[in-house]
Amino acid sequence: MRVPGCVLCSLSPEEAVWHDSRLMVITGGADGLGEVARVVWRAHVAEMSTLAAADRQYLMDVVFTVEAAVRDLAGPLKMNIASLGNVVPHLHWHVIPRYADDAFFPDSIWSKPRRTGVVREIGRGRLAAALAARLPGAGDSILSL
Amino acid sequence: MRVPGCVLCSLSPEEAVWHDSRLMVITGGADGLGEVARVVWRAHVAEMSTLAAADRQYLMDVVFTVEAAVRDLAGPLKMNIASLGNVVPHLHWHVIPRYADDAFFPDSIWSKPRRTGVVREIGRGRLAAALAARLPGAGDSILSL
Repeated sequence: MRVPGCVLCSLSPEEAVWHDSRLMVITGGADGLGEVARVVWRAHVAEMSTLAAADRQYLMDVVFTVEAAVRDLAGPLKMNIASLGNVVPHLHWHVIPRYADDAFFPDSIWSKPRRTGVVREIGRGRLAAALAARLPGAGDSILSL
Repeated sequence: MRVPGCVLCSLSPEEAVWHDSRLMVITGGADGLGEVARVVWRAHVAEMSTLAAADRQYLMDVVFTVEAAVRDLAGPLKMNIASLGNVVPHLHWHVIPRYADDAFFPDSIWSKPRRTGVVREIGRGRLAAALAARLPGAGDSILSL
């Protein structure tokens, strides 16, 4: 289940703004942006279509709950949601608020920057509070099951 | 429902490799790659968290069905799945097979190319056949509802 050398396998729940037995919501810096949210499946699985259907649905329910919380907190122009994992093939979803004056808009955040963008911070504490209000408490969640 | 000037609002079901009343699966060229699949919600909605929960789940079920079909057809090293929409804010999911020798790996397909990559084509006909076998026929689908 844990793969030696995988940076996401070695995450600790203490680093998460929300977690349960199946997943963690963390924040991490993205080049040119502030801290953005990532939803990480705890088991080392590479592809969504490998997960059991109920797990896949649960993961996406949490991803979209994070999307809604970030929209409410940050009021972005657009949300970007992506699961790439080419460098770290352990399922994790980027949930990224985008603004016309960020470093990359309208390109992806992995594209060449177009400008010195405005950096905005949602704040780990605000995100943790918003998720605590929208998701069951840490522990084994029954959301959507 | 249809927004003048929106390229995805003006898509026709005849252009799709699979469609029903709520969504279409299309293929389109991506710079440096071959034709890749996109799953387009037919109504002009910008964000996943704006969709009704049942619609959101249905859209993702189709996205992951396309992911599974592409994995079986193409045998990629990794799948990338993303909803960005900064240029066209009408919900569409990119479902992209990635290979160590494609133009961008391990970066995103929106990053600067690292090499002249190998271009692979799944083929519209093969994808259409694979989806016809996995999804209900065109028309109003009841998948997952």
